[in-house]
Amino acid sequence: MDTTARLNEQVMLDTLMNYLVSMARTVESAMNRALDAILSLDNPRTAALPGEVFLLEPRINEMEIVIDEHAIRLLRQGSFPEDELRLIVAALKLNNDLERIGDLAVNLAERVVSLREMPDAQIPEDLVPMVSAVRAMVSESLGALIFRNVDMATTVLESDDVVDRYRDRIFERQLQRMTSEPQLVGPGLQFVLATRHLERIADHATNIAEDIIFWVRGLDVRHGRGLEGLRSEPPATLSAANITENSQTSHSDVTPSRNTDDVIFT
Amino acid sequence: MDTTARLNEQVMLDTLMNYLVSMARTVESAMNRALDAILSLDNPRTAALPGEVFLLEPRINEMEIVIDEHAIRLLRQGSFPEDELRLIVAALKLNNDLERIGDLAVNLAERVVSLREMPDAQIPEDLVPMVSAVRAMVSESLGALIFRNVDMATTVLESDDVVDRYRDRIFERQLQRMTSEPQLVGPGLQFVLATRHLERIADHATNIAEDIIFWVRGLDVRHGRGLEGLRSEPPATLSAANITENSQTSHSDVTPSRNTDDVIFT
Repeated sequence: MDTTARLNEQVMLDTLMNYLVSMARTVESAMNRALDAILSLDNPRTAALPGEVFLLEPRINEMEIVIDEHAIRLLRQGSFPEDELRLIVAALKLNNDLERIGDLAVNLAERVVSLREMPDAQIPEDLVPMVSAVRAMVSESLGALIFRNVDMATTVLESDDVVDRYRDRIFERQLQRMTSEPQLVGPGLQFVLATRHLERIADHATNIAEDIIFWVRGLDVRHGRGLEGLRSEPPATLSAANITENSQTSHSDVTPSRNTDDVIFT
Repeated sequence: MDTTARLNEQVMLDTLMNYLVSMARTVESAMNRALDAILSLDNPRTAALPGEVFLLEPRINEMEIVIDEHAIRLLRQGSFPEDELRLIVAALKLNNDLERIGDLAVNLAERVVSLREMPDAQIPEDLVPMVSAVRAMVSESLGALIFRNVDMATTVLESDDVVDRYRDRIFERQLQRMTSEPQLVGPGLQFVLATRHLERIADHATNIAEDIIFWVRGLDVRHGRGLEGLRSEPPATLSAANITENSQTSHSDVTPSRNTDDVIFT
């Protein structure tokens, strides 16, 4: 490949990365509005938040299409170094997960619209820490994307269980209250659905973290595979130093070839 | 590219297609067991179905990883004719949607396990037609994959609203019943969650249909774009003749280039 073509390819890869970061920021902004809205159902100052989430959705959808087209345009140009190919494949996947987080922000905003019309709606006490946990997972997974940071991605993978436990606790508590107080059935159903949306946002943050580990390290850690020894150091509070240290490094590991294909596809 | 390399590439593409079809069949089988199980809660002969769904999940997860690895291995080999590149990109996406339908079959099976322990569980009357609609959408989307058939894919895109209407009707009816009869809160919650799983299976069938239209026609029809004039003929009952006529044809359309990128990413 001549120098001009290679330069052009590099510009297109940078553009892909910029698109992804821009989409990630828009999706996070939509999600944060939905999360703020569901924790402040009585506050007149947050009444406009669901509408803002609905307005962001078509823009996120457009971004998804543009990113996919851009990634496919890159693939059309032929062969790439291994880490660049992995970035393009990861971009296709990340793009999809980001768009779905945007969809789930819309679903949450729909729950808020219903709940705001229900005088008996009382925010479940575990919803506040559950929302914080989900917000942190998404923030960390997008940080992992922006800083290309495997440690941040690994932290996300370790947080998924916490969200599931909050979901189960809220479910049990709402079930009890709905059974004893019929006027709580309406809001209770909305809160149970909202916790499922939150759980799925956390799942997509997990997918994003997995895609980043694949991109940076060439390892497929989905379904709990190969998580051991992923960290460059023991888990620690995230700091700016931590981020810098692990950013922009690349590794030559590739997924070890396996011979199980014939066993599975029978 | 020399003849041997080209032949090898063709074999790998055929293998990719075979893997996808095999995964699609496994996922459909898991889903059908979950659907049969939720419609026969009192039947002792279907008590083993949820366990069978749980057993299929790890196999589906393995298939997902093998297909992704195979598609990426293909991409590493360099440049492809346009329709082959689209098949590989579509495979990455289809693979993801298939795996998620497998996950949702597990979620449905979990609902069945809970419901079977509840003596007051009565199957909502709209659940039977809702399950039929979802089953038909998945069957049609997988048919579109196997026969490379855009008409079948278009039929799937047209069915999504029906499923959403059943979901809303079941929700309203369950809300009423749970409010008036407290002992129905437990089963009602499970049925409401089950309809959300069904709705999401239908969403993934829609994604699969969109991916097939992208693969065969090079058109991105997500988010309702460019659906006009997609059919080769007016909607009709599916017949073997219909399938044969549209199978294995390819078109040279590509997504028209647009200049909106700068407007969206600001």
